[in-house]
Amino acid sequence: MNRSRSDGRKSGDLRSIHFQLAFNRFAEGSVLTCFGDTVVLCNASVEETVPPFLRGQGRGWITAEYAMIPRAGQTRSPRESVRGKINGRTHEIQRLIGRSLRAVTDLSLLGERTIVLDCDVLQADGGTRTAAVTGSCLALFMALKKMLEKGQIGSFPLREMVAAVSVGLVEGIPLIDLNYEEDSRAAVDMNFVVTESGHFVEIQGTGEEAPFTGEDFEALRELALSGIRKLIHLQQEALR
Amino acid sequence: MNRSRSDGRKSGDLRSIHFQLAFNRFAEGSVLTCFGDTVVLCNASVEETVPPFLRGQGRGWITAEYAMIPRAGQTRSPRESVRGKINGRTHEIQRLIGRSLRAVTDLSLLGERTIVLDCDVLQADGGTRTAAVTGSCLALFMALKKMLEKGQIGSFPLREMVAAVSVGLVEGIPLIDLNYEEDSRAAVDMNFVVTESGHFVEIQGTGEEAPFTGEDFEALRELALSGIRKLIHLQQEALR
Amino acid sequence: MNRSRSDGRKSGDLRSIHFQLAFNRFAEGSVLTCFGDTVVLCNASVEETVPPFLRGQGRGWITAEYAMIPRAGQTRSPRESVRGKINGRTHEIQRLIGRSLRAVTDLSLLGERTIVLDCDVLQADGGTRTAAVTGSCLALFMALKKMLEKGQIGSFPLREMVAAVSVGLVEGIPLIDLNYEEDSRAAVDMNFVVTESGHFVEIQGTGEEAPFTGEDFEALRELALSGIRKLIHLQQEALR
Amino acid sequence: MNRSRSDGRKSGDLRSIHFQLAFNRFAEGSVLTCFGDTVVLCNASVEETVPPFLRGQGRGWITAEYAMIPRAGQTRSPRESVRGKINGRTHEIQRLIGRSLRAVTDLSLLGERTIVLDCDVLQADGGTRTAAVTGSCLALFMALKKMLEKGQIGSFPLREMVAAVSVGLVEGIPLIDLNYEEDSRAAVDMNFVVTESGHFVEIQGTGEEAPFTGEDFEALRELALSGIRKLIHLQQEALR
Amino acid sequence: MNRSRSDGRKSGDLRSIHFQLAFNRFAEGSVLTCFGDTVVLCNASVEETVPPFLRGQGRGWITAEYAMIPRAGQTRSPRESVRGKINGRTHEIQRLIGRSLRAVTDLSLLGERTIVLDCDVLQADGGTRTAAVTGSCLALFMALKKMLEKGQIGSFPLREMVAAVSVGLVEGIPLIDLNYEEDSRAAVDMNFVVTESGHFVEIQGTGEEAPFTGEDFEALRELALSGIRKLIHLQQEALR
Amino acid sequence: MNRSRSDGRKSGDLRSIHFQLAFNRFAEGSVLTCFGDTVVLCNASVEETVPPFLRGQGRGWITAEYAMIPRAGQTRSPRESVRGKINGRTHEIQRLIGRSLRAVTDLSLLGERTIVLDCDVLQADGGTRTAAVTGSCLALFMALKKMLEKGQIGSFPLREMVAAVSVGLVEGIPLIDLNYEEDSRAAVDMNFVVTESGHFVEIQGTGEEAPFTGEDFEALRELALSGIRKLIHLQQEALR
Repeated sequence: MNRSRSDGRKSGDLRSIHFQLAFNRFAEGSVLTCFGDTVVLCNASVEETVPPFLRGQGRGWITAEYAMIPRAGQTRSPRESVRGKINGRTHEIQRLIGRSLRAVTDLSLLGERTIVLDCDVLQADGGTRTAAVTGSCLALFMALKKMLEKGQIGSFPLREMVAAVSVGLVEGIPLIDLNYEEDSRAAVDMNFVVTESGHFVEIQGTGEEAPFTGEDFEALRELALSGIRKLIHLQQEALR
Repeated sequence: MNRSRSDGRKSGDLRSIHFQLAFNRFAEGSVLTCFGDTVVLCNASVEETVPPFLRGQGRGWITAEYAMIPRAGQTRSPRESVRGKINGRTHEIQRLIGRSLRAVTDLSLLGERTIVLDCDVLQADGGTRTAAVTGSCLALFMALKKMLEKGQIGSFPLREMVAAVSVGLVEGIPLIDLNYEEDSRAAVDMNFVVTESGHFVEIQGTGEEAPFTGEDFEALRELALSGIRKLIHLQQEALR
Repeated sequence: MNRSRSDGRKSGDLRSIHFQLAFNRFAEGSVLTCFGDTVVLCNASVEETVPPFLRGQGRGWITAEYAMIPRAGQTRSPRESVRGKINGRTHEIQRLIGRSLRAVTDLSLLGERTIVLDCDVLQADGGTRTAAVTGSCLALFMALKKMLEKGQIGSFPLREMVAAVSVGLVEGIPLIDLNYEEDSRAAVDMNFVVTESGHFVEIQGTGEEAPFTGEDFEALRELALSGIRKLIHLQQEALR
Repeated sequence: MNRSRSDGRKSGDLRSIHFQLAFNRFAEGSVLTCFGDTVVLCNASVEETVPPFLRGQGRGWITAEYAMIPRAGQTRSPRESVRGKINGRTHEIQRLIGRSLRAVTDLSLLGERTIVLDCDVLQADGGTRTAAVTGSCLALFMALKKMLEKGQIGSFPLREMVAAVSVGLVEGIPLIDLNYEEDSRAAVDMNFVVTESGHFVEIQGTGEEAPFTGEDFEALRELALSGIRKLIHLQQEALR
Repeated sequence: MNRSRSDGRKSGDLRSIHFQLAFNRFAEGSVLTCFGDTVVLCNASVEETVPPFLRGQGRGWITAEYAMIPRAGQTRSPRESVRGKINGRTHEIQRLIGRSLRAVTDLSLLGERTIVLDCDVLQADGGTRTAAVTGSCLALFMALKKMLEKGQIGSFPLREMVAAVSVGLVEGIPLIDLNYEEDSRAAVDMNFVVTESGHFVEIQGTGEEAPFTGEDFEALRELALSGIRKLIHLQQEALR
Repeated sequence: MNRSRSDGRKSGDLRSIHFQLAFNRFAEGSVLTCFGDTVVLCNASVEETVPPFLRGQGRGWITAEYAMIPRAGQTRSPRESVRGKINGRTHEIQRLIGRSLRAVTDLSLLGERTIVLDCDVLQADGGTRTAAVTGSCLALFMALKKMLEKGQIGSFPLREMVAAVSVGLVEGIPLIDLNYEEDSRAAVDMNFVVTESGHFVEIQGTGEEAPFTGEDFEALRELALSGIRKLIHLQQEALR
């Protein structure tokens, strides 16, 4: 489990993680998030409406949209606005981001407002969804802080931070924060979204290439939890 | 954990499960699948092509489509063909079904063919995706058997059966195979897809309402595994 | 005109007709309709709105949607929700079903409500539109009866039953209730929608393969009227 | 049955009918067709391909498209290209035009070519579909003549002319070639497409407002046949 | 600069220009506009609403839609309603027409109304956008006159006429009002929209084939201005 | 003409201009382009195909796509992929970028390849299209240089640099490189695309608010040309 990887990391090492706050000057919260060569711009926008199913209840909502620019990856992909449809993977990811942030927010403190997290992937080298969740939590924090300062809300709705990380089994070895090359060789692929207090918000694991055992799951979970603790620490440093 | 539920079940009881084979006479495999009041028609179609990314490799593919008829549920929903878009939930489910079946099939034995599993929900009372996976595995079995009998393939590509079940935490109590009413009250919601040999193909858990602990996860996993064993047994009975 | 057909029927014989009432337990009216191997699920939903052009007039509306599941027929067809468009044939059929039911209903007795008839073809062997009209009339009856019992309406709006049947010229011989194989050989193809009292609601006849004479038309009309009488009788039996 | 109408016509009078040949100078056949205030531009284009289902059979195809410019009618309607969808009525009409022309053409004489009839309604005052069929037959004639002159085809594929007319019951009186105002008051509405030799290609009748009797049908049919004879005569004059 | 062109014109000659007023009898303004073989039907419709961004301001709006019928040109093009999208060129042209007309209209005199100019190209031989602007100005004039006569508006909102013409460099020679054949050989292609008083509303010039000099621009501008004076004169004659 | 602007600039001053080369590490050419607070990421991708109309001619093509991320501006705009359509302004801009780059490139030296310039606006404060053209020229340069180094092409196809700048009349004063606030107050709005050698590729001017004179045009042109010279100089510095 100590074997080094193509980029020299040990199995439990995260890639180099950076958060550049206020990258965009108009958004209420904005974080350029880098997990190695994966770069995601997370912008939080505060809107004074809620979706129809919530109207008149005095509660708020958090939602997310996710997209890749066409040349985020090694080859160019057609633009979704040109194809006129959003694909299934995009849907899955943006639903995941929204659920993850709602799980750590007291929506009743938002008033009838929606916070939209736009996660635009500028460069993609694996782990875009986990970078998007982790960076969006910071962008949400910034937007909520601005709302509190402006007096739009009376108390801070974010209960605790949340972060996400990928883990996988590559040639039988559990690895954390897989880059694209590792991800494409992984037999088992999991994403964990976990709160600052160590509670699980999402567990998504798939063993399409090879169904996995309970022991495999335990090993991957431990690896993920150690990575999450580091990510939460880095989030907190970025906010200082 | 013994408290009875609205429909009189114990926490670990599945609903009444039925598989009506050959419901549709044209499809190569067809199973009307009932998990209580949830009714899903799973039809398997064999097509003599593969998606572009697989052409010329001599291997096959399995994919799935999922839809609900407009009045499957308690109120009518607009038809996706009328809205002109497939929503995110539909995308997630059909991708899950496809991955689950591919995980137990040796695609190299299929030749350059695609098997499409169409899962049309005729009545929806919670657990439509788990019914769809479980019924589709039977429909796939039937289609593969027909291919073997006709000599289209030389050996049987399905390595083992696969089944799926939902579990959730409702008022702190772990329940299995939730109906719609239970599902809407669940704080934690998980789906397990597990093979006949007890390996995991998919774990999807979300605690949007309340992030959950490692112990919660263990309890839900045990409940799910016991239900999967019953479902696999019922699949085998249906095939006899 | 007595020559037997591929399935042994005489030229004037309907296929075996079945109506399974309350197939779906949520819909206000629900009828699984079988004309031989053609199987259409007709669900009636009562909605408390009317289309914009009728608002504020105190009258109701009846409309229909029609779709085939992908593997209804001998080969799989792409799902319309995936193609993102409804084709011309679908439009023609759902407009026909709506007109047929409105013709026998006093819409002023419905209040500002819409009854939507969803006709989902589960298996297709010719005559899906005539099965859909005939089964939808029963589903509409059930929904209206429920509305009357609940006191939503004060008197029964359905003036009389309506049924539909196909007729065609195959090798010069007039046949009724054509199956798929007969339909594809028919030079002239007609659909009649006729009320219990023998009035015509719709006549649609096309002789794309061979324009037809007035005498041909008379013969086909007689055949259709005899079939309609049997169908209306079977509807009435089903309601008992 | 002799009562005069809002525009002074007798019940059996057609409106003023004009065909302006070669309105568009690029199309192989082009006819500006006027049925009173209804104006339809029918352009025939010859294309050197056939739809996929006909490839390699050496036969041709005829198809039609129908559209209204936004201000064809008394109020402006949204453009279908803006709405991004073709509505059901448009589909019905363009399918009808295609079938009507194919019924009088020997497609085996066309070679692997498609003739597309574009029917663009410039002004709409009822009866646009019957004007479109009647004018398109002339446009088709012109295009086929040009093909024969150029030696693209060896013999003339049009077996005979075809024309179409609307009839309806307005306040119990059978009227022919209804204008918009009459059409909106009609209880029964029928369209007949009939060949030069008096054979029926299409009969479409709907009694949504009031189901009709066999005698009603006979009266409307006789009225239609007399109108068709006049239209065919006018087509022949236009070609001279 | 005196060399004659394929159709015998001198470099500064417009094609034969015709305006047929009231071509469509329903539209508030309607002008069939011919620039040689280019034929555009311009219909003005008055609607009693304004776009959302203008509501409640007491001002009106003018907008335009542009389309070509499929066989406008030498070969048939697919219908935009069938492709389900409007292409970039269409967007550019309809935005140009709208801006050109708004520039000469006092929108505050319209009340909360929108005038929609529908420009449908019936035949295309180059210069469809300039014919559309020039004809639409007349259609707008007619619609405004009708509004004034009916008392819907108190004073005439059109400040002055506006017209448009194309110019281009073909083999180094500046030409005006290019037909399709000339346009496809032009290295530089410009459109000028100019008011009756000689002010510029739009200048659009592109030298994709060959970037052009300041002197080229001067020569083309002079040519355009002389053509605009003639077009404005012809507009005024048409209104007499 | 010397009056200072809201951000302290003189009328002829460009905003602060920056080009960050190789922002994205996968694209063949990548430039993060800043014109003040306007930030556009221009990525060039080389693809081994050409559009259908160019196949088999041995020549290449250059095309562009333009999009804004949802929170580029002061308020959030819906994502075009969600709306399922590209709006007219987007179409206009991406066509402009493509034409501008093709005008300075010898496409016959590219081989049958397409270079796609993706211009994604990360922050929008006016002048996004001119920043996109100017930055895309650098991204194209980089991609072509890489192709030359790899031996894919034998000589350098870019004849000279091209840059773009906006000018406008604000309260009668000609200003260059307008920011959003200035742009929204401009009565006349022009964009110039000009080559290194001072030739015009595009002139687009619109005086929707107030038609403009020949003298206005001259003043704006001079201002634009002086800005272009500075931009070309900055491009050349960036490449060193």
